[in-house]
Amino acid sequence: VSAAVREVVLRHAITDAPKASDFEFVERRLPATPPAGTVHVRLLWLGLDPYIGQTLRARHMGEKAPAPGEPLPAEGVAVVLASNDPTFSVGDHVVGNCGWAEEAIVPAARLRRVDPTIAVAEHLGVLGMPGLTAWAGMTQLAKVRAGDVFTVDAAAGVVAGTAGQIAKIEGATVVGIAGGADKCTIATESYGFDDCVDYKLDGWAEKLPTDISVHFENVGQRVLDAVLPRLAINARMVLCGLAQHYGDGSVAKLPVGPIIGKRAQVFGVVVYDYFGRRDEWVSYAAPHIREGRIVEHQDIAEGLENAGAQIERVSLGKTEGRALVRVGG
Amino acid sequence: VSAAVREVVLRHAITDAPKASDFEFVERRLPATPPAGTVHVRLLWLGLDPYIGQTLRARHMGEKAPAPGEPLPAEGVAVVLASNDPTFSVGDHVVGNCGWAEEAIVPAARLRRVDPTIAVAEHLGVLGMPGLTAWAGMTQLAKVRAGDVFTVDAAAGVVAGTAGQIAKIEGATVVGIAGGADKCTIATESYGFDDCVDYKLDGWAEKLPTDISVHFENVGQRVLDAVLPRLAINARMVLCGLAQHYGDGSVAKLPVGPIIGKRAQVFGVVVYDYFGRRDEWVSYAAPHIREGRIVEHQDIAEGLENAGAQIERVSLGKTEGRALVRVGG
Repeated sequence: VSAAVREVVLRHAITDAPKASDFEFVERRLPATPPAGTVHVRLLWLGLDPYIGQTLRARHMGEKAPAPGEPLPAEGVAVVLASNDPTFSVGDHVVGNCGWAEEAIVPAARLRRVDPTIAVAEHLGVLGMPGLTAWAGMTQLAKVRAGDVFTVDAAAGVVAGTAGQIAKIEGATVVGIAGGADKCTIATESYGFDDCVDYKLDGWAEKLPTDISVHFENVGQRVLDAVLPRLAINARMVLCGLAQHYGDGSVAKLPVGPIIGKRAQVFGVVVYDYFGRRDEWVSYAAPHIREGRIVEHQDIAEGLENAGAQIERVSLGKTEGRALVRVGG
Repeated sequence: VSAAVREVVLRHAITDAPKASDFEFVERRLPATPPAGTVHVRLLWLGLDPYIGQTLRARHMGEKAPAPGEPLPAEGVAVVLASNDPTFSVGDHVVGNCGWAEEAIVPAARLRRVDPTIAVAEHLGVLGMPGLTAWAGMTQLAKVRAGDVFTVDAAAGVVAGTAGQIAKIEGATVVGIAGGADKCTIATESYGFDDCVDYKLDGWAEKLPTDISVHFENVGQRVLDAVLPRLAINARMVLCGLAQHYGDGSVAKLPVGPIIGKRAQVFGVVVYDYFGRRDEWVSYAAPHIREGRIVEHQDIAEGLENAGAQIERVSLGKTEGRALVRVGG
């Protein structure tokens, strides 16, 4: 049996948005040799998404919440320390759900190999679920193209940042919507958006374009109410997330009349449906990442001991860009 | 100057749904020879749609209501009595907006020629705006295909009837939703739907399929609330009309969460956008009409003097199938 490793788990079941005090460390002893079909990995990075706060209280797409003491969900980047599966070798970089742990024994089927020459932490952001979400919404559903006027909220985040950078690559004008000057600066400076509107300022909606041809929704009613009257005829809208509503359980609604009047096309996107098409996204993204046209802004918490505080910040909308936890070097 | 002809107009401006008593006849004297670019037509049929009741009180897509005494909107089938435009000859059958009149002088540009060997009144129904609406929604937006489970409300109407018959032709299972046994019988007997659910019966929603892959909405909240939880993953929904809400001005809303969860695709359809593509629809429909696979159920009021009563019935949802007024033989 190997040395004990630390893992962050829920201290108790939660019904509200997660707080740092809801988590604690446990020690686990891992077997010296991984069982057949598994690998032993050391975590490098954890990616923390808003949906995780929902999953922890069983409010994400019907998923069961982990019980106190059980491994927590999150994609991580890890390096293989020992392998008992032909798919992976020692030293491989992998991505997958490994828990919020220093080290873990993980079924090989849950992991995929990543190319560390492109990026490492980026496999949790632009190359991970957030980027895949943006790619699916922008290229498979809304089919953004030259001349589009594109708006996206939660604009400092990686879903929005990647969606906007894809839109720029395809020739659209891109206007972000974000809460606060710092987040708007990330959208315009880091991601190269043409403009970003701060929804915390009075009269913000009046600053939006009035001919929005593609909109990508991550927030909810507050933004929908501002965007709907400003849609162009034949606008396309991707519905992705409802961060505004995760905290209080309120329901976002789209009035039907304007959807008809604008001949709008509305697409719900769930990234799970595109897991089998990651290679397409990575092929699209890799040259743009190498040449700096797709970047991610990272908000890094140092060490697993800060993972609980980081998911609390994510749930409060306080993180700016890709929320990560650096687990090990 | 020719003999006087009668025309139905508004007696006074209206703000509620139109009633028979809101209309009156006026007499007009038409010039003996139509001015250049116009034709003199004799009306055969008028088609009365729910949107007309909205237009008459300026609640349809920003359109101005006709003032008392002005010509009223409705497509009509007419025959050309005299022409001062090279496009049309005496005896041509034409369709267009000619007012609710026995005869009228109409700009040639407002008319299109129809093939009287296919059908005549049908150019106001399956071959007119309702059929074009159904074709656009089903083949251009929802792209119905074999294996789909299709639901449509206002199922005795021509939009729904045509949508359902297109769905049957393309290989879908078709379930109508309508108010009352008579309307359901039209859907199943006249249109050949596989089933029709009477929403006036308790527990009606439980009789809907639970794997609806395409839905076409003509009514509003009452049906949307029943259909949304029964959508299949990746369902497509066409939003066309909101008959339930025309009377009281209430607002239908779609909750965003289920649209995301179902990965639904929602399309607003406005038939105006497809006026330039009528020929495609007529080409698709003509053989099916000739061979009885696309039919329309007609609800005929005899004579212009009953046009006001007919639009009242339309606005109350009392007509069954294509609401027509037979103006002349």
